[in-house]
Amino acid sequence: MFVPPPKSPPDFHAAWEVVQRRQVYSCPPWISLELQQIRLPDGRMVEDYHRINLPDYSVMFVETEDGRVVVERQYKHGVGAVTLTLPGGLVSPGEDPLVGAQRELLEETGYEAQDWRSLGSYVQNSNYAGSRGHLYAARNARWVREPDSGDLENIEILLLTRAELMAAVRRNEIQVTSFVAAIALATHPELASPS
Amino acid sequence: MFVPPPKSPPDFHAAWEVVQRRQVYSCPPWISLELQQIRLPDGRMVEDYHRINLPDYSVMFVETEDGRVVVERQYKHGVGAVTLTLPGGLVSPGEDPLVGAQRELLEETGYEAQDWRSLGSYVQNSNYAGSRGHLYAARNARWVREPDSGDLENIEILLLTRAELMAAVRRNEIQVTSFVAAIALATHPELASPS
Repeated sequence: MFVPPPKSPPDFHAAWEVVQRRQVYSCPPWISLELQQIRLPDGRMVEDYHRINLPDYSVMFVETEDGRVVVERQYKHGVGAVTLTLPGGLVSPGEDPLVGAQRELLEETGYEAQDWRSLGSYVQNSNYAGSRGHLYAARNARWVREPDSGDLENIEILLLTRAELMAAVRRNEIQVTSFVAAIALATHPELASPS
Repeated sequence: MFVPPPKSPPDFHAAWEVVQRRQVYSCPPWISLELQQIRLPDGRMVEDYHRINLPDYSVMFVETEDGRVVVERQYKHGVGAVTLTLPGGLVSPGEDPLVGAQRELLEETGYEAQDWRSLGSYVQNSNYAGSRGHLYAARNARWVREPDSGDLENIEILLLTRAELMAAVRRNEIQVTSFVAAIALATHPELASPS
């Protein structure tokens, strides 16, 4: 069954060359859009390849001292419905993503947590990039103050057992890629420890 | 430790009202961008909320008859580097996402698979939407023909054991949210069966 990889020329995996780039829309600090002219490794030209620039963000899978997961329930306009989410937020310019995650957790939920570990960082869109999400897990969270997120959304804080959260994932009640990725990565027995 | 949800007014989780919408960029069929004026449930107005419209896509976690995972290695311009990916592609207008997934799998890798199941569908960006990704798992894949993706990328097909793929995830070699989400969801022992 094993199919050997094809005999590849040296430039088979070469990076694409951006010949020209032109900003076609900008609304700082939220979003800008760029139109790129690309030269592929085989010489072909692509005239209208886009790049979406959005701020980086953090997403946090946080468990309390008694093993409940800090989950949010809110209307999200990108989903167009009320959905379960994890705590998360934009990384400020120049801010370390982990520091941003800890700041956002406190602002959004009132919790402080320990034992932070990275679940990796990932781009939203493999073609147009969008933004990079930094995913974290943390434990032993304690509630230390009233939340004050400053977000546009009204956020309800829930403390779910892992079993309740897994059932919500199976029912597709978490409707955003980065949130479900953080949940599945943080609770995956084969991915729980570094390689 | 348990914090009860706040006493919420009836409109606490109400949907946002789009008062006005204006297209600010369009490049069909790839992308369009919309600027929305929003009325929040508490009456506040938001003047510049964006919506990114991109085509939906499918991502497929596919195992062969001998339990290897069909993985791709390619330069992805959104990542800006060579990265491991899963098979995936845009859903054609009006196409069922599962049919699109099966079509793309064949075109991109030359494999046909059985026992398809949904891993859920998810928006890329909880605020601005981007697009919806439909994630699937399938088994008992067999190689039936030479691939012919028509994609801009040069795609190298790899057949990895689950252990090799898990190690790649731990090393953050899968750099795209929807791909790592599909891997973690498909191989998660608590998420492998429907609720």
